[in-house]
Amino acid sequence: MPIVTRLTERLGITHPVILAPMAGVAAGRLAAAVSGAGGLGLIGGGYGDRAWLEAELRAAGNARVGCGFITWSLDERPELIDLVLAHRPAAVFLSFGDPAPYAGRIAEAGVPLICQVQTRGDAEAALDCGASVLVAQGGEAGGHGGQRATIALVPEIADLIAARAPDTLLCAAGGIADGRGLAAALMLGADGIVAGSRFWAAAEAAVHPSLHPAALAAGGDDTVKTSTVDIVRSRAWPERFKIRVLRNAFTDRWHGREEALRGALDTEAPAFQTAMAAGDPVNGTAIVGEVVGLINAVEPAAAIVERMVAEAETLLKGTGRYIGPS
Amino acid sequence: MPIVTRLTERLGITHPVILAPMAGVAAGRLAAAVSGAGGLGLIGGGYGDRAWLEAELRAAGNARVGCGFITWSLDERPELIDLVLAHRPAAVFLSFGDPAPYAGRIAEAGVPLICQVQTRGDAEAALDCGASVLVAQGGEAGGHGGQRATIALVPEIADLIAARAPDTLLCAAGGIADGRGLAAALMLGADGIVAGSRFWAAAEAAVHPSLHPAALAAGGDDTVKTSTVDIVRSRAWPERFKIRVLRNAFTDRWHGREEALRGALDTEAPAFQTAMAAGDPVNGTAIVGEVVGLINAVEPAAAIVERMVAEAETLLKGTGRYIGPS
Repeated sequence: MPIVTRLTERLGITHPVILAPMAGVAAGRLAAAVSGAGGLGLIGGGYGDRAWLEAELRAAGNARVGCGFITWSLDERPELIDLVLAHRPAAVFLSFGDPAPYAGRIAEAGVPLICQVQTRGDAEAALDCGASVLVAQGGEAGGHGGQRATIALVPEIADLIAARAPDTLLCAAGGIADGRGLAAALMLGADGIVAGSRFWAAAEAAVHPSLHPAALAAGGDDTVKTSTVDIVRSRAWPERFKIRVLRNAFTDRWHGREEALRGALDTEAPAFQTAMAAGDPVNGTAIVGEVVGLINAVEPAAAIVERMVAEAETLLKGTGRYIGPS
Repeated sequence: MPIVTRLTERLGITHPVILAPMAGVAAGRLAAAVSGAGGLGLIGGGYGDRAWLEAELRAAGNARVGCGFITWSLDERPELIDLVLAHRPAAVFLSFGDPAPYAGRIAEAGVPLICQVQTRGDAEAALDCGASVLVAQGGEAGGHGGQRATIALVPEIADLIAARAPDTLLCAAGGIADGRGLAAALMLGADGIVAGSRFWAAAEAAVHPSLHPAALAAGGDDTVKTSTVDIVRSRAWPERFKIRVLRNAFTDRWHGREEALRGALDTEAPAFQTAMAAGDPVNGTAIVGEVVGLINAVEPAAAIVERMVAEAETLLKGTGRYIGPS
């Protein structure tokens, strides 16, 4: 059965499960698969490669998908928002920057604006923009994030929304990979969830298959939040956002020695690129969050969505056992 | 109505709510109040002040309370475990160290051993000891903690328990201050929760009342995880445990400058002590976690427990609304 919330009703989807628009990883095929399974697939516009974005929007075919951007990077190529809006996306998802410059155009296009936030201040700014959906993202998430944790951030943002703009919807992101996380998010006050890492390990993800085994073997204690992966890729991320990845020889060598890495880019940058092209999990990077300890198989996105929803349904239907006699 | 779980049945309590044994703060009066409200109060044995511990065990009166220790500190005064066991505690709670040296004596006394864990490895060690209850503690907690986040750690430890020792119970700690957090923890696979910060702001807490207003005014973004508070107090915490506190002038001045602080202890240590004695939230410290953004009033512990349970009950009874037509 579907899980129904305000999010499914408002976005016209079957399940309150959104694919995190992971840069490069959430390409057209994965986004289409998640939407096809009843969730909302978002293509990861990432650092704004126009040709890639056009190709992936085409690759999604007739699937009703949206698109996400790294906002500070979009600021360097703001015309990409028009490219995406011309495709009538199911939603535009903005994270890691100020959504204000884009909110007007997105609203005029009649497209729901989803703003991912890492702090209460971010949430205030998103509400100021009239965002349709806020995503409270905890730092346990894979990839980039802030300092807060999902279980405390979600109810705090829920209280803010209730006080300021109760029609705004809320999703939880970070640390959610299965039906337990989905059910928990609903209890915390969310209308749905955004999942990244779990779909990073989907069969349709644009991930080098050689990276998957290292992640499947890892536990949640095996990730690290670092700047090293951005330094070696020369990605100019704002200081407050670090990237959570699987700890490996690369991060062991450079995490805590960031200035030395900056001084060694002549050799380290090409070595990292080579490792990534080869799908080398030891000298490249696997961008996953703490839920890597809950992921034991690469599966089709539809199977992931279906099990997540079925697990949540079982949990939500079984809550009567917790209610004692009065 | 009570919330019933395996934890309430096994420990003989009404609600699956455990008071975190906060050093100094969870004294006899607070522990007795939480037990009196149907939860399980734990006296915070902290750094092992024998006279304080004896006084607080007496202060708890006839209430059925337990006691918690900082395990690495208990190692320096292991005889305190016998002192506590002689009082027939409802449970002994060990965190931040190896529980193995104590597990045998606790089991012989017929007392449930609750082991708080911060990693999967900690959990393996606790299961090796035959702990009755594991507490998976996320780093969003106030006070000392590790690096993981509650929403991802709890299900990972639940899976470990299911595979290795399914009769072992599990509680969630870190980021839980109300019924939303309690209901979410149950969905994640926990049998109950441990709350610290929320009871730090209880009327019965042994907290200087001048510290409370700063915490009530703060949001969840206003905490910092730091070593500075342990350095200035000369508490020899293992490197992997930092303390989460309200950010203030003291942490702003020293966080990131730990070596300089070590060199300035002659003046800084007495200044900090003076500030703590005066309840100065600017130059002393208020030890609270990210849930500080969910706490708006100092209330009796019983009111906190009752509202937490009532909120959770409402949420757990209302889950039918999420189940759509098949």
